[in-house]
This record gives sequence, C-alpha cells and structure tokens, in this order.
Amino acid sequence: MTQPSRIWTAALVIIGDEILSGRTQDKNISQIATWLGIQGIRLREVRVVSDDMDAIAEAVNTLRARNDYLFTTGGIGPTHDDITVDAISAALGVEVIVHPDARAILERYYADKGGVNEGRLRMARTPAGASLIPNRYSGAPGIHVENIYVMAGVPHITAGMLDALTGSLEGGEPLISETVGAWVPESEIAGLLLELERAHEGSQIGSYPFFREGRVGANFVVRSTSEDTIKSVIDSLCEGLGEMGYDFTPGGI
Amino acid sequence: MTQPSRIWTAALVIIGDEILSGRTQDKNISQIATWLGIQGIRLREVRVVSDDMDAIAEAVNTLRARNDYLFTTGGIGPTHDDITVDAISAALGVEVIVHPDARAILERYYADKGGVNEGRLRMARTPAGASLIPNRYSGAPGIHVENIYVMAGVPHITAGMLDALTGSLEGGEPLISETVGAWVPESEIAGLLLELERAHEGSQIGSYPFFREGRVGANFVVRSTSEDTIKSVIDSLCEGLGEMGYDFTPGGI
Repeated sequence: MTQPSRIWTAALVIIGDEILSGRTQDKNISQIATWLGIQGIRLREVRVVSDDMDAIAEAVNTLRARNDYLFTTGGIGPTHDDITVDAISAALGVEVIVHPDARAILERYYADKGGVNEGRLRMARTPAGASLIPNRYSGAPGIHVENIYVMAGVPHITAGMLDALTGSLEGGEPLISETVGAWVPESEIAGLLLELERAHEGSQIGSYPFFREGRVGANFVVRSTSEDTIKSVIDSLCEGLGEMGYDFTPGGI
Repeated sequence: MTQPSRIWTAALVIIGDEILSGRTQDKNISQIATWLGIQGIRLREVRVVSDDMDAIAEAVNTLRARNDYLFTTGGIGPTHDDITVDAISAALGVEVIVHPDARAILERYYADKGGVNEGRLRMARTPAGASLIPNRYSGAPGIHVENIYVMAGVPHITAGMLDALTGSLEGGEPLISETVGAWVPESEIAGLLLELERAHEGSQIGSYPFFREGRVGANFVVRSTSEDTIKSVIDSLCEGLGEMGYDFTPGGI
C-alpha cells in the first residue's frame, strides 16, 4: 500500500449583500465544491460576508492562512458596491493597480459597446502582482493572486472561470463516493453506520433521510480516497441492511 | 422624525459535509435571510462548516458574541455524524442532557413507528438550560439556548421551525426594498448609483446585471428602513435613467 497523499483544502468567501438579504439563491457553493472535489481538493469552509471592506479582509486573511487555496465569488463588477479588489488588496497589504492585460481585454470587449468608461475600467483593477483568469462570457477577467482565486458572482460566469482553471491547481487524491439507498428510517441503523465508519479508517458515511410516497427512507453516501475501502463499507452496509430485512438499492433511491 | 431604532443582527452557521462536498444545494441561507428580514433582523454573516466539533464550536462562539442572534442548521438527526448538540454544548461550556419534553415528544411520535431506540433518543439531547422549538413534520424538535437557535437541515422542516418562531424574536425596523429594472449595461450608470447612494443617508443600492434575449440589463434594488428615502432614491434613479434615454420598469424586469 502506498502512503496516502496529503489532503489539499480550499475555503470559499462569498461576497454579497444579495445573498445575505435572501434576494439571490446562492449556486456557487455547490458548483465550486463539486469542481474542487474533481481537482482532489476539499472545500473545508465557506463564509458569506457583506459588501464591507473589513468583513471581506478578515475572512480572506483568516481562511487563506489555514487552507491551500482561497476562492472568492462576487463583488468584481463595475458598480460602487463592487469592492472585492480593494478589500483583497488591503488584506494582502498591496496596492490596487490597473492591470494592463485586463484593460486591453476590456477595451476589445467594449469596442463596439460604447468603449471603456470609468465604471468599466474598475473591472481592470487588480491587486499588484496578480495574474488574470479568462472570462469567456463577459470580458471582465477573474484574478489570481498568491493563493487566492477571485471569481465572478454570476454562476455561469464562475463556471467558465473554473473551466479555465481546470487542471492548473495541485491537489491530492480525489475523494470518491458511492451511494446505497434503502427504505429504512435512518434512526434504525444509526448504530450500524457508526460501527462501519469506525471499522474502516479513512471512510466517511453520510446519511441523508427523505420522506417520499408516504414512506421514510435514506441514502447512505460512503466517501473515501480508496475504492477498496468504499467497496468494503458498501458490502458490509448492504449485508447489514439485508440481515435487518430492508431492501436496498445500489446507487441510491 | 423619530430616531431610527438600533439594528438587530443575526448570523447563521450551516453544519454539514453534504453542503461542502457539493452533494446538496443549500436552500437555508435564502429562506432564513428572508424570514429574518421580515422580523426586522439582518443576516450579517454565514459560515458553512464541516461535521467537526472544533469547527462548529469556533464558528458558534465567534458569531454569537458579535450578533444578537445565532442560527444553526443541520446535524441534529439520529446518526453518528449529527454532533451539533455536542458541539454547541462544548462551545457554551454546559452539559448535554436528555430533555424530558423532547423525550416525551419523540416517544409519542415513534409510538406507532417501532418506539424510541438509541439513535432516536439522540434527538432528545440538548445543551442544559435549553427550550424546544416545535417541529410539526418529523417529531425531533429544534433547540433554543441563550441567543442560539438550533434548526434542522432539511429545508421544509427548517421552514416549519421558523414559522413556529415568527414574532417571538425582538427586531428593529425591517429593511424594505423597491426595485427598478432597465435595459442598460450597469457599467453605464455606475456613477449615478454611487452619487444617489451618497446623497441619501441610510440607503443601499444593489445592482444586479443580467443578459437576456440577446440584450444586457440590470435590476437596481434600493433598500432602506424608510419608505420616504426609498421613494426619493427611486424617483431620482428613474429621472436619471430617463435623461440618459433608457426605458425603465418599476418593480424590475
């Protein structure tokens, strides 16, 4: 058996009063979490903060120090409430500059749309020392500086930026998972789940109950970096469910 | 003019590896944010943490100290990964007890479902000194202790618990909002928005761009506790948009 590789972690800071007011339903946590998983990086913590310099800088500095990577979404548009670049520059103690490549991108993008004005030029601002993340949809790029990846807030633009980053971040073994569903109240087999998790080092078993068609059931998601471990947990779980007289469905219900 | 009431704030801690893995799309941020807004309480920050004692306790203690209220969702079911009660008790430095009323509720609920077993009894555990929040859907209650409200993770159960709490939390003047939409690139009117926000104390203007039917536009959401302030900002914004030759739609596009 080879030594398992170290675990790589990331944190996410979501910047935006629109999320905290309840106006906008966040979709970036799940898409970034899923993308990170494929890169072999685990999303360990998320914070949602308001459009406030101190709140952003506090979250950025705390989370980037204790994770390999920090992602942010939101607050990089052209309006007065878009202060992410200022807050991250303050957190890093570096100047805000107008990035020449970002300016060139925006000049091309807006050439037939009235040209670059003061608001649009805001989107060319970066912390000093940053590089750019391509934005295939709307011109204004994302920003990479130190271990921070500054992304758009609009989910399909974020998705395009993630796509551009695919394969460029070092990660470890991806956490893989397998699911079994059963028409069993999760409270009936809580003891079995605990026992299986303890017996299989490096495994995690999540229990996700549901209520459908007038019956209760649950999906059990087994996660590990090792396929063998997952297979062993799944086999024991199915055996245990069978012994207790419950039908189970590989892949989940 | 009367003195504006003080601002009441809340924070939310979402507990769950299923959110951080990307498996489950969170729906609690927006529903709790919206509910809090109606109670005159502003959601100021959110953290998503893993099913880990220290991570939960750190978030709980930091956020409850600097907000009037702290809400948590998730981790109060019957299985081994449900450790919210333990983590909050540790954070508060109090014992975990089996709450007699919670036990009675679960005994009634499970009377015709096989009775209370060890896993189910976990859901009667609370920090010492807690009171219960009714759960109309699945028996196991939420928990209120000090300024902490411990809620279920499953969104419709959370919704029922919020409903049970409606009107019981002291708040201030609700933040109200009004929206105007226009087929204008937000970058064209960034200067106008900044000017209007600065000229109207206590107002916030959010700009939410979109791309539809091949055209760009944006909705502008004006928030304040004062209807007069909102009306004044909206009037000036519509006037400004009109002068620049843009059509606008009260209520948003």
